[in-house]
Amino acid sequence: MKTLTKIAIAAAAVSITATAMAQPKPENFVKQRQSALALIGWYFGPMGAVAKGEQPFNKDDAVRRTSNLVALSKMPWEGFVAGTDNVGNTKALPAIWTNAAKFKDAGTKMEVEIAKLAQLANAGDADGFKKQFGVVGGTCKACHDDFRKQ
Amino acid sequence: MKTLTKIAIAAAAVSITATAMAQPKPENFVKQRQSALALIGWYFGPMGAVAKGEQPFNKDDAVRRTSNLVALSKMPWEGFVAGTDNVGNTKALPAIWTNAAKFKDAGTKMEVEIAKLAQLANAGDADGFKKQFGVVGGTCKACHDDFRKQ
Repeated sequence: MKTLTKIAIAAAAVSITATAMAQPKPENFVKQRQSALALIGWYFGPMGAVAKGEQPFNKDDAVRRTSNLVALSKMPWEGFVAGTDNVGNTKALPAIWTNAAKFKDAGTKMEVEIAKLAQLANAGDADGFKKQFGVVGGTCKACHDDFRKQ
Repeated sequence: MKTLTKIAIAAAAVSITATAMAQPKPENFVKQRQSALALIGWYFGPMGAVAKGEQPFNKDDAVRRTSNLVALSKMPWEGFVAGTDNVGNTKALPAIWTNAAKFKDAGTKMEVEIAKLAQLANAGDADGFKKQFGVVGGTCKACHDDFRKQ
């Protein structure tokens, strides 16, 4: 690995983990973000059946899933440190770092729309929830289209 | 339902095919629990430097990490469904299912002690936090000793 890349990873690690004991390895950053995104898929995906009307809206389940999603939606970003675009089995595209502002905006959109989905779940608003599910899914797709290998 | 919402749902379903299915595959359960446990390690581990006095207590960082841990500590258990003890690269021991009550108790202990750690972080109680870090670590170790392949 090039020295500049090492420095970039180290600098990013220091900035995001104030108490980091040892610097995580590049593959640990990839594992971190993939774990967070996998869990987002895990809790979000099955609610598609509710949005499509194939299953009834269940408030308790929706609250549990969206509560988890609110927490998880804040996690993936710290894993996208510079120098981890060609590590392991990552599907991360270079645009994540060359167009960082757009990537950050895409991530923020998901966080904001997931927060709204959680509010609707907590309010027991089944119709609003079903519509908002599609909005959240759109933020997933937009980011995957631009920043993930197909 | 509006057409745009339908499209967004369809797009989301395509993006998240692994979890959009009604019944996740055994390997998806393994991925779910491994993702949750990996993130628990990610947010918990670096605070060891604080507990050991190698780095100063940083309230903001401790609050962020423990807030994530409170959410994450509730997630792994749903991944340990019966029939997933010999799937992929899992280190899960059969005792998870043959001694389910003890496993559940071990998981609950971690959740409870992490909640206490988060309270101490929020209170800015550095000394209490350092002690409690060790208690939480003990719950990790106890569960790994009994229920994870070494």
